[in-house]
Amino acid sequence: MKPLKYLLPDDALPTHWYNLQADFPEPLPPVLHPGTREPIGPEDLAPLFSEELIGQEVSTERWIEIPDEVRQILLQWRCTPLYRARRLEQALDTPAKIYYKWEGVSPSGSHKPNTSVPQAYYNYKEGVRKISTETGAGQWGSSLAMACGMFGLACLVYMVKVSFNQKPYRRALMEVYGANCIASPSDTTESGRKILHDDPECTGSLGIAISEAVEIAAKNADTRYCLGSVLNHVLLHQTVIGIESLKQLEMAGDYPDVIVGCTGGGSNYAGICFPFLGEKLRGGRDVRLVAVEPAACPTLTKGPLAYDFGDTAHLTPLVKMHTLGSGFVPAGFHSGGLRYHGMAPMVSHVHKLGLSEALAINQLECFASGVTFARAEGIVPAPEATHAVAGAIREANRCKEEGREETILFNLCGHGHFDMQAYMDYQAGLLQDYEHPEEEIALALAGLPSA
Amino acid sequence: MKPLKYLLPDDALPTHWYNLQADFPEPLPPVLHPGTREPIGPEDLAPLFSEELIGQEVSTERWIEIPDEVRQILLQWRCTPLYRARRLEQALDTPAKIYYKWEGVSPSGSHKPNTSVPQAYYNYKEGVRKISTETGAGQWGSSLAMACGMFGLACLVYMVKVSFNQKPYRRALMEVYGANCIASPSDTTESGRKILHDDPECTGSLGIAISEAVEIAAKNADTRYCLGSVLNHVLLHQTVIGIESLKQLEMAGDYPDVIVGCTGGGSNYAGICFPFLGEKLRGGRDVRLVAVEPAACPTLTKGPLAYDFGDTAHLTPLVKMHTLGSGFVPAGFHSGGLRYHGMAPMVSHVHKLGLSEALAINQLECFASGVTFARAEGIVPAPEATHAVAGAIREANRCKEEGREETILFNLCGHGHFDMQAYMDYQAGLLQDYEHPEEEIALALAGLPSA
Repeated sequence: MKPLKYLLPDDALPTHWYNLQADFPEPLPPVLHPGTREPIGPEDLAPLFSEELIGQEVSTERWIEIPDEVRQILLQWRCTPLYRARRLEQALDTPAKIYYKWEGVSPSGSHKPNTSVPQAYYNYKEGVRKISTETGAGQWGSSLAMACGMFGLACLVYMVKVSFNQKPYRRALMEVYGANCIASPSDTTESGRKILHDDPECTGSLGIAISEAVEIAAKNADTRYCLGSVLNHVLLHQTVIGIESLKQLEMAGDYPDVIVGCTGGGSNYAGICFPFLGEKLRGGRDVRLVAVEPAACPTLTKGPLAYDFGDTAHLTPLVKMHTLGSGFVPAGFHSGGLRYHGMAPMVSHVHKLGLSEALAINQLECFASGVTFARAEGIVPAPEATHAVAGAIREANRCKEEGREETILFNLCGHGHFDMQAYMDYQAGLLQDYEHPEEEIALALAGLPSA
Repeated sequence: MKPLKYLLPDDALPTHWYNLQADFPEPLPPVLHPGTREPIGPEDLAPLFSEELIGQEVSTERWIEIPDEVRQILLQWRCTPLYRARRLEQALDTPAKIYYKWEGVSPSGSHKPNTSVPQAYYNYKEGVRKISTETGAGQWGSSLAMACGMFGLACLVYMVKVSFNQKPYRRALMEVYGANCIASPSDTTESGRKILHDDPECTGSLGIAISEAVEIAAKNADTRYCLGSVLNHVLLHQTVIGIESLKQLEMAGDYPDVIVGCTGGGSNYAGICFPFLGEKLRGGRDVRLVAVEPAACPTLTKGPLAYDFGDTAHLTPLVKMHTLGSGFVPAGFHSGGLRYHGMAPMVSHVHKLGLSEALAINQLECFASGVTFARAEGIVPAPEATHAVAGAIREANRCKEEGREETILFNLCGHGHFDMQAYMDYQAGLLQDYEHPEEEIALALAGLPSA
């Protein structure tokens, strides 16, 4: 038998998260107060976030311990398998070796529980009883719903309206887990009501949904807010992906020449890349990192690195990130999880330091890649994850053209079982490629705050 | 950390299937020719089935080798995990230890690829180029579509109409894998046209869909038929489930007092039970086996053991099985995979020999059990699998009442990601319990052929 998968025993489950902030050649720019434009302190975030998570957000410690209560839950599906995509290699007739880390084995079907479980745990431990959040495609919302259920916390999810309507079964999943899911913009918050007043047909955005969820947390003492991507502590929690992959590739006797991930807020990409990047920054092997974003929401490839708000209503602090402007509302394309106007500050910083590449791919190529992958490997990727598949296939084709036997690693961050409508539309020829008009991007960028 | 899962290394993947026919205290009754009512020979089945599969159907060899080409594919997701359901035990406050074998990690989401892969392989090896089949809930159809794709075979799936309409995304999955999926009854076959002529509104049944698929294979020389349950060779292929579970429970230092599975055609139940039953019949430990069927299609609990046809149009041979009559059309309840009028001859024989118990559970209890399970364990079971969950919860509650620390093992044969409409309907209070009227069952039984 040729080895197809690399499994780790339970005792290989990481005991610590890896914090790239310890190894940055220059530190992250500070987070600024939305009013004073001065660097903020932990007390400014306290109404919104758990104390422990605020500490992790600013920590420069290299290794941060994962609580046993969290590891006990992660152990159910972690360590996740690393696969050698032998049938895909054959289908592409490439000399490259393709590996993928498969995060879809979590009960909610994506990498998101890696952070939803610790976020729910810390909040539970600190006496919080209710969590509010936003979700795009629903992967984050259902993962947080699951984690909240495990710790007995109430969970309120604002789901971007276009996804809420496209994906009733994601909502059903959240409800099976016991959460309450509301289409955003909604009339349950001031931010939502204001947006609906200006545009009753608004299909929503992650920025708007964040405003609604943040408002609920800010106004209710027993409620805290959780975010599924972008923030430093979220990226930190996702590093279990890369830490495990390092060990698994060692089992395979291999090391990646290039790592590919899809980027929305940036967390699954950071999760697989940062541990490898840390090795490199500490004098280890070089590795190319390639972030693939949708052409319809081209944060890294078309947005400047600038201070901006995380949400539309400007309730959050200002962070320095690649951004299309907090007023940017992407087209209702199907990769709901990749619709965020900004990019994680840490991923943006890595990009600025020249440590990673970015490319934007349009959706028809992504779905075609998803179908190619499904027919070869059996697994149907989430529309978000097809961007990573498309990027990996481009690399494999380049290897074929150049006759190079490189090692490609990509993160397959979730399955597409709740996204079959998008595949049906694709197969019926109903989907089109889409690029946001340059003038609209310029308009959104003109509204950037000056720091 | 308390162990939650028991994983086996790749080299523990079974090399042989276990054939219970070798250990039966009395042999299976013969299969009869539909015309002569005499025992049939391999030549009678040759137009429909691969030669190798016909051989396995009648073999009484105890161990049958799994081809390397099949093992190479199964290796992608096998050995599947065995879980200790610690959080469910806690939620039920039971002294029982509950283990479940999790077959939903296969790419198509159920145990079905355990047999779709070898069936596609043998047909491919024998020069067949096209496969026809039927599917209920769609788990079998999508699993066969995946396997056919891997061997480059065309795949034609007749899907029971009620499920076809309830589950467009299952069909989309088959199409992603490259299969052609048709609602049954259809106008593409004589059997289908006849049924539509008599009842244009007919919602279909597995018996009807089998007639259509068998007719296509019988009429086309390059086409063979594959079945997803019921037959001896299908049950044989599923024994990897129980063989692995035996090893995994040994790792856990445990042995089941009772094994619970859901039964439609009987294959996943046989898959987990038969290897344990074989141990018992060869002088090993005793174990209770409990088959759970839907109250709306109560084959084992209300159907007699009798010779009957496998399909509605009476194209198949006669097999001795528990049956509600081949004219039985179950109500359009949601467990599409459990709608078959008969029960696998081997499972029926085991039942007749007093080696297993059966109980029928209604759907509201099953969905309630599914939600309890999902909130505790994170995994949303397929509606079919909720019958096994409900049966296991009944056993755990009995253990609590009796104060017994028994060990319960059940087979969680698939996830419910394509069945969320059923969960939505359940949560909205739209589902009702349903039992088929006794007089309708009596009427269907009156049509049984005399052997």
